[in-house]
Amino acid sequence: MNHKVNETMLIDFYEFTMANGYFDHGYTSQIVYFDLFFRKTPNNAGYAIMAGLESVIEYIKEISFSEDDIAYLRKRNLFNDQFLTYLENFKFTGDIYAIEEGTVIFPNEPLITVRAPIIEAQLIETYLLVAINHQSLIATKASRLKYAAKDRLIIEMGARRAHGVSSANLGARAAYIGGADFTSNTYADRHHLIPASGTMAHSWIQLFDTEYQAFKAYAESYPEHSTFLLDTYDTLKSGVPNAIKVIQEVLIPKGIKKCAVRIDSGDLTYLSKQARKMLDEAGLNFCKIIASNALDEHLIKALIEQGAPIDIFGVGERLITAKSDPVFGGVYKLAAIEKDGQIHPKIKISDNPNKITTPHFKHVYRIYEQPSGKAAADLLTVHDEVIDTSKPLTIFDPEYTWQTQTFEQYTLKQLLIPIFKNGQCVYTLPSVEEIRQHCQNELETLWPEMRRFEFPHQYYVDLSQKLWDIKMTLINDRRQRRVF
Amino acid sequence: MNHKVNETMLIDFYEFTMANGYFDHGYTSQIVYFDLFFRKTPNNAGYAIMAGLESVIEYIKEISFSEDDIAYLRKRNLFNDQFLTYLENFKFTGDIYAIEEGTVIFPNEPLITVRAPIIEAQLIETYLLVAINHQSLIATKASRLKYAAKDRLIIEMGARRAHGVSSANLGARAAYIGGADFTSNTYADRHHLIPASGTMAHSWIQLFDTEYQAFKAYAESYPEHSTFLLDTYDTLKSGVPNAIKVIQEVLIPKGIKKCAVRIDSGDLTYLSKQARKMLDEAGLNFCKIIASNALDEHLIKALIEQGAPIDIFGVGERLITAKSDPVFGGVYKLAAIEKDGQIHPKIKISDNPNKITTPHFKHVYRIYEQPSGKAAADLLTVHDEVIDTSKPLTIFDPEYTWQTQTFEQYTLKQLLIPIFKNGQCVYTLPSVEEIRQHCQNELETLWPEMRRFEFPHQYYVDLSQKLWDIKMTLINDRRQRRVF
Repeated sequence: MNHKVNETMLIDFYEFTMANGYFDHGYTSQIVYFDLFFRKTPNNAGYAIMAGLESVIEYIKEISFSEDDIAYLRKRNLFNDQFLTYLENFKFTGDIYAIEEGTVIFPNEPLITVRAPIIEAQLIETYLLVAINHQSLIATKASRLKYAAKDRLIIEMGARRAHGVSSANLGARAAYIGGADFTSNTYADRHHLIPASGTMAHSWIQLFDTEYQAFKAYAESYPEHSTFLLDTYDTLKSGVPNAIKVIQEVLIPKGIKKCAVRIDSGDLTYLSKQARKMLDEAGLNFCKIIASNALDEHLIKALIEQGAPIDIFGVGERLITAKSDPVFGGVYKLAAIEKDGQIHPKIKISDNPNKITTPHFKHVYRIYEQPSGKAAADLLTVHDEVIDTSKPLTIFDPEYTWQTQTFEQYTLKQLLIPIFKNGQCVYTLPSVEEIRQHCQNELETLWPEMRRFEFPHQYYVDLSQKLWDIKMTLINDRRQRRVF
Repeated sequence: MNHKVNETMLIDFYEFTMANGYFDHGYTSQIVYFDLFFRKTPNNAGYAIMAGLESVIEYIKEISFSEDDIAYLRKRNLFNDQFLTYLENFKFTGDIYAIEEGTVIFPNEPLITVRAPIIEAQLIETYLLVAINHQSLIATKASRLKYAAKDRLIIEMGARRAHGVSSANLGARAAYIGGADFTSNTYADRHHLIPASGTMAHSWIQLFDTEYQAFKAYAESYPEHSTFLLDTYDTLKSGVPNAIKVIQEVLIPKGIKKCAVRIDSGDLTYLSKQARKMLDEAGLNFCKIIASNALDEHLIKALIEQGAPIDIFGVGERLITAKSDPVFGGVYKLAAIEKDGQIHPKIKISDNPNKITTPHFKHVYRIYEQPSGKAAADLLTVHDEVIDTSKPLTIFDPEYTWQTQTFEQYTLKQLLIPIFKNGQCVYTLPSVEEIRQHCQNELETLWPEMRRFEFPHQYYVDLSQKLWDIKMTLINDRRQRRVF
């Protein structure tokens, strides 16, 4: 059976009506620049994590409309034959720049910039947003869980509460990038190389006449991988004693000193402390404790603060759905068009001031203070600006422009990397292990103040003087016109 | 390109280790009964809506492991060769009963009952939960939005904020079942027959030199389907006047009296009232107003209460992610096993009392009071109980057992319908239009008290005396044992 699916038609319908309209009005070869960016971090966090680029690359490579897709569109009686013929041979021919997966990202900077003929740039909008919004949401949430868990491990086990199959599968990958250590989802292991692990369900225990027999059978089948689920009948009165008995009868004689118990309900601090005590008194201090039951970063933090001796946190629905704030609000906005070989910046004003866009084809620089190596601010510039790093660099807040900051010792990193040039992929995607390591390295460049959950330090994303001037000119120009 | 994808491997890893363990311990032909049910409605609502059965049916029909899947499992060094050989020819051979899509559902009643050899019943767990949890979540949320919107229409337009492609595509289908009138997602129209509609993006306006030119170009391309997005520069000073001008210049001369404007930011009540006034004064009272911007059921209710003359609500992220409560907590629990042709009920006790399961192979009856025809309570019985509807029916609360209710005039409906028998699908899935209509009919059987958002009336799901006695016997039996 084929594991690839053509998701080309996951396109908001207005992209088609606009594309056909551009075709009608002679804009077929109009080159435009679109930025994909977000305005606010989920949970008002100090940062977010980029993820979803692999999906974008696969999509762009494979985008195509089938005969049935075209037949469907024809039946809608809205589209010209010429446009439909054009779609038959549709390919993406433009350029895409993107921030790499696993990178720390901030509001109001381009995560992806697309330079392409307008019809192409428009038709890929929906999928780009789905992929980046979903996967960045989950990677960001996972990084918070891992921060709360400190040196303890995290298993992502939310597949059953995910919002459909891609939420489960790509959610597991995004969670791993952000810091989860394992997944419960076999598909994610098989197809995305995320290490899958698992224990047993209550049904295993229920099938046997006694819990003891159930534990024993499992230990016999998987002596090297025994984890005993404790709460089918009574965690402390039944689960722990039976687990101890089976470990002593089956594992110890084989010289195996590796196993775990899992607590899935009740007061996790109390039960884990009691279980730890009983296991230690039986000489089983090697036996790890896994806990699960609607955990999130705040509960994990509280459990650790209360001294719960939990080694591994199983996190389900609150990670895979990002329950506390399940929306990553990425948008995709026109930033510039080309006319006669020149780039003309474009702006969108709005009745909501924070919806005003930053125009032009831009670069995104991250400024690292030296010698700390910590990320200090991001700077958006016009694409052709050159920064002389031998001189001090002064930046200013784009909202409160009198607030300035000058860096004497600093280094710069350009975040937007070429991914496609003229429709060809020019980027080699790192392995998921490399992306995960990159994410850990990235998080190390943040001051701890940015990672706390309550009122984190807000990072600056500033504009260069040149870019700021262009933005102000466009705003004033629009404001002064009487007819738009 | 193939539109089908083999999602068989979306299986929690412990299902494989348990299945292999059952194989090891001679349980290959053990027949079991599993119930899929949920414990709590999202948003503490008075009801939920069943959805996702179509996905379940497709999955069960197509479930199979490829050679590559088996090779992957072999590499894990956990599974017996015999078990892996068994997986090569894996098919579902059991029975599945389910509540039909679009039906109103309540906590603690089986939505699906699976009767099958344990390995089969176990391996399908994850997918069944993903499908039912995700789609019931979105259908339920959509029914709330439609309730708030009363006679106004709703466009589901959240694809770009969905949790991946299946969240967008099947979410659009679920939203339609629950009451949404349209979707923005072309894939959902093409593949799930949900009517797709759309307007224009800000980029359309920005590409043209003026907003007026942009509106005019659109009206020329789509005179019968013109919707003008008003807030690119200034909704009232620019958007509305330009829309009026273009309607008068392009549509009126063609005799077209059908169009709309869309407000996407700012105060929607104020702006819609002003826009309505300006349109009416220009004689364009046929022009509809669409509003969008982070809407949910509470905002829609407030807008209508404030007299906002909005005809169509565009609902994005808060529907497709069910933002206010993005988890539908369906679980899948062993209810019984067969031994020597007899059904033996099984229970799961827990340290959390509400996690204790209701054992046995059950029927679910809905009791309708007559002559009102309203749903009064659901009654779970043992599968072979017969209810004599010529006599009054007395039910009692399973928690506060002294609380009883007697129905003199009533009718009964059995909710669990055979879907698969011996691995063969015996059910003809209704069209999505029929499912949507069924859902509307179902919602009509609810008292209004159950649909309100704050403290809705809690509906009763009671147990028959026979079922209650069995449950109590099993609880007492477990409690009295010293060794489990």
